[in-house]
Amino acid sequence: MMNNVKTYIDTAMLKTEPDLILKGGNVVDVFCGEIKKADVIIKDGIICGVGSYCGKNEVDVTGKYVMPGLVDAHVHIESSMVSPAEFAKAVMPHGITTVIADPHEITNVCGTDGLKYMKDASKNIPLDVNFMLPSCVPATPFEHSGAALTAEDTKNIAEDFYGIAEMMNYPGVVNGNAETLGKLCLDMIDGHAPLLSGNELDAYISAGIKTDHECTSSDELSEKVSKGMYILLREGTLSRDIDKLIKGVNSHTLRRCAFCTDDRFAGEIISDGSIDHCIRKTVSLGLSNTDAIIMATLNACEMYGMKCKGAVAPSYIADIIVSDDLLLNNILQVYKNGVLVCENGKALFSCEPCDTSHVTKTVHIPEITPDFFADETDDTFTAIELVPESIITKKVTVKKDNQMTKVCVIERHKNLGTKGIAYVTNYGITNGAVAATIGHDSHNVIVAGDNDSDMAFAVNTLGEDGGIAVVSEGKVLAFMPLPIAGLISLDSAENVTLQHNELETAAKKLNITDKVDPFLSLFFLPLPVIPEIRITDSGLFDVTDFKFI
Amino acid sequence: MMNNVKTYIDTAMLKTEPDLILKGGNVVDVFCGEIKKADVIIKDGIICGVGSYCGKNEVDVTGKYVMPGLVDAHVHIESSMVSPAEFAKAVMPHGITTVIADPHEITNVCGTDGLKYMKDASKNIPLDVNFMLPSCVPATPFEHSGAALTAEDTKNIAEDFYGIAEMMNYPGVVNGNAETLGKLCLDMIDGHAPLLSGNELDAYISAGIKTDHECTSSDELSEKVSKGMYILLREGTLSRDIDKLIKGVNSHTLRRCAFCTDDRFAGEIISDGSIDHCIRKTVSLGLSNTDAIIMATLNACEMYGMKCKGAVAPSYIADIIVSDDLLLNNILQVYKNGVLVCENGKALFSCEPCDTSHVTKTVHIPEITPDFFADETDDTFTAIELVPESIITKKVTVKKDNQMTKVCVIERHKNLGTKGIAYVTNYGITNGAVAATIGHDSHNVIVAGDNDSDMAFAVNTLGEDGGIAVVSEGKVLAFMPLPIAGLISLDSAENVTLQHNELETAAKKLNITDKVDPFLSLFFLPLPVIPEIRITDSGLFDVTDFKFI
Repeated sequence: MMNNVKTYIDTAMLKTEPDLILKGGNVVDVFCGEIKKADVIIKDGIICGVGSYCGKNEVDVTGKYVMPGLVDAHVHIESSMVSPAEFAKAVMPHGITTVIADPHEITNVCGTDGLKYMKDASKNIPLDVNFMLPSCVPATPFEHSGAALTAEDTKNIAEDFYGIAEMMNYPGVVNGNAETLGKLCLDMIDGHAPLLSGNELDAYISAGIKTDHECTSSDELSEKVSKGMYILLREGTLSRDIDKLIKGVNSHTLRRCAFCTDDRFAGEIISDGSIDHCIRKTVSLGLSNTDAIIMATLNACEMYGMKCKGAVAPSYIADIIVSDDLLLNNILQVYKNGVLVCENGKALFSCEPCDTSHVTKTVHIPEITPDFFADETDDTFTAIELVPESIITKKVTVKKDNQMTKVCVIERHKNLGTKGIAYVTNYGITNGAVAATIGHDSHNVIVAGDNDSDMAFAVNTLGEDGGIAVVSEGKVLAFMPLPIAGLISLDSAENVTLQHNELETAAKKLNITDKVDPFLSLFFLPLPVIPEIRITDSGLFDVTDFKFI
Repeated sequence: MMNNVKTYIDTAMLKTEPDLILKGGNVVDVFCGEIKKADVIIKDGIICGVGSYCGKNEVDVTGKYVMPGLVDAHVHIESSMVSPAEFAKAVMPHGITTVIADPHEITNVCGTDGLKYMKDASKNIPLDVNFMLPSCVPATPFEHSGAALTAEDTKNIAEDFYGIAEMMNYPGVVNGNAETLGKLCLDMIDGHAPLLSGNELDAYISAGIKTDHECTSSDELSEKVSKGMYILLREGTLSRDIDKLIKGVNSHTLRRCAFCTDDRFAGEIISDGSIDHCIRKTVSLGLSNTDAIIMATLNACEMYGMKCKGAVAPSYIADIIVSDDLLLNNILQVYKNGVLVCENGKALFSCEPCDTSHVTKTVHIPEITPDFFADETDDTFTAIELVPESIITKKVTVKKDNQMTKVCVIERHKNLGTKGIAYVTNYGITNGAVAATIGHDSHNVIVAGDNDSDMAFAVNTLGEDGGIAVVSEGKVLAFMPLPIAGLISLDSAENVTLQHNELETAAKKLNITDKVDPFLSLFFLPLPVIPEIRITDSGLFDVTDFKFI
């Protein structure tokens, strides 16, 4: 270390030739909130000076903007449906150089094998992936997951992680449940506390929980900031909160705010971006360019204690974006640790595939026949109403009609034989079925359709590796295999995007309404902590009453 | 720990009675920069809730302001001339609950014995004293100190300290000197880099140095903030920088700025305050009350990695001020870890005296006779011009006249017999002498007078324990004994203040000009890193040329 310091000092003092001089750019100064014309010198992956320099290894960035790499402060990489390497290839051209990752999707399926896979698969990629240890596996006792992490398990492996991932079990925390509190064994603990307020919020924070990414109003943001929480403004594929929160971001609260995507499809990352999209969105809502960049860089690094990261300044890690514009619409270059890793929207790196044998073939259900879905309903019964552009659902009482879609969640980890059947409105499928091995958070099989034959065929199409299938009249219209845990493709982000598009085209053919996402609306149906009503492999669950119907 | 967390949670949830409810106050919210009417509940020294509460242990603070305890981010407690316990009694009624202390004065005299004394003497006081390990003992090779700490010594004891104290040897750093860099062995390193700029500043920062408290212009502050440094705005007895720096503090740079006093006499702390004075000064220059409080609390804690300190929020340490006003002119109560420690300007605590045997009797010089000061000067020679209200001096060429004051620095640690004699202008003493065992940073004896007899008598008056003496015609006009290292009194802060006043009255009798402080102007004369000319026990030193004259 001390030798390195000597090298950095000598580089700053012009005694040692820098590895790289970014010459003539407009440097975004996240500390002063200003843009300054300056050269940046880099040695051994570290920024050694910001000033006026000449040398051998100059890259002319005259007129371009030079800024720190962006941070996604909370992401489930699995939700992109691609591997960590492919995720890196998708996000890094958009300027993301660091993510705080919560691998709780794969952990719900594969347990510590899933954690091992995610860490192994992130080792040799240029993206910095800081893994938090999932705290809620399973998320609730109301569904069957593939694995469980107890407080004891958590303590045994915690030291290998950056912190404790989102503590979703806020009732457990505020009630002082020993098993729940036992999991909070690292200094950095992410929160997940939608609408929590007043003394319950105080109690939740008293447990040492530092962040929240579930705010959906500026008042909620203000109360949580006021009580010392850091807030991650989320812009995922399904949950888009920035427009609701932006009013709460002012010159004082700014430093306590950063961005995250939480769950975002690879295709959307490629087409619309990631944290760069958050910057554009925030600026479009009135925040200054520099303040938006400060949120995406310095603030995220500060809140997660990532020292010497998130700024273009001496002694900082040389994670740097060179962009045509401050909105990052045209990123020219991305440097990670001083090495050029992306240029003109393309990743320049490739990654060796890593062993997936312990996280594949995770779907354990027998061949299904149509009578599996037989059910008896009264004339009037309780159903799930999908709410357009939202993760929440409404509990409705309906009469049987042809517009309703049957859904079924089938346990798929240990062949327990458990299943839950219900009906949803506002989905609108005709003459077919959709099935998937993605169903938050336990990721059992979910299937929706208007006839039992296609529902059975859709589930059988998933096979032992899993994926997403759209079928009609006994034919597969589209299928995306997701062999890793039934969640992640082995394919490239580009190909996954193509397959995703094919799935969407197939869904349209089946007349699924365009008011809801044909797949995400199903993926979140089993999550029994989101209001108002859910279906799990254990049955129909009333979230408001917190019990099965 | 986990049991405690359960207690805090239960307190927040109203299941456990709080130890204290501060009821009805206007709480300063340092995160949102707002004032909010709320009750604050405290259990086991921790804030568990900010909201609306009733209970047994209420203290009515209706209409009063409730805010976090203040932090002095860089202070040499020795410069107050009182012990850590007496220092605590002086600063805590002013709302200071935490200090970052650099014990480099006593370390220059007593080495690790001095460090041990300061730590022992700070153990059983309510003030949180975070000790940094001095990095520059001695400050320079141009004077003889009582002790030296090498890089090897530093590494051996560093783990017992909060960080590395101000690295004043910036030439050593920017030149990559191995011994200098070897001392930078902890994560938190304080800087001291007056006027350092450009690539030298980059090099200095590249060594991992995080803070600076030597800025004297807003441009200097801006460049240092821009390059990632944290800035401490200083308001000491001698160096008062806030008015020069305030222009550099804006909504972006604010979070990188805090306050410090560096060197401040006990008397001035009692009469004018400490960090509370910095708040008043800053507000008088136009900063908002809340922003000034944010600098003095949250910002200081953030930059020094003091988690859960510096805010009135759940999970934060209950270091709390209750004040009549936001300017802290009338602090009613100070709580440390939830315990009332000061009320209406008075400390409620007392402290056991601690062992001083290893840090007393530190003056080792023989009885001095007047001929000790005999010197031969040419008709024209180089002298030191004192600059009013400044620590710097000017190098001047003068002709011998009666207006000049003779000064002498005498090595006092190891009886080496070294001395330096010179002349100063702008001091103006007649018919007497002033002597002291304080002389930054090696703290040899310094004496100034207009006749050799009184100069000898003044030095002899200091005795083996040291202190500050003002003498005239063979009589002691005033004497403050400083038995601990020749720097610190055994007396109370109040009595030290009285003695200090007597010294000042005596100085006035000797016609010492009121353009300079009669004592501080001498105390800093030997410091060979401050421009332009200095006198040490090794001779007259030209700081510009960095060599002896």
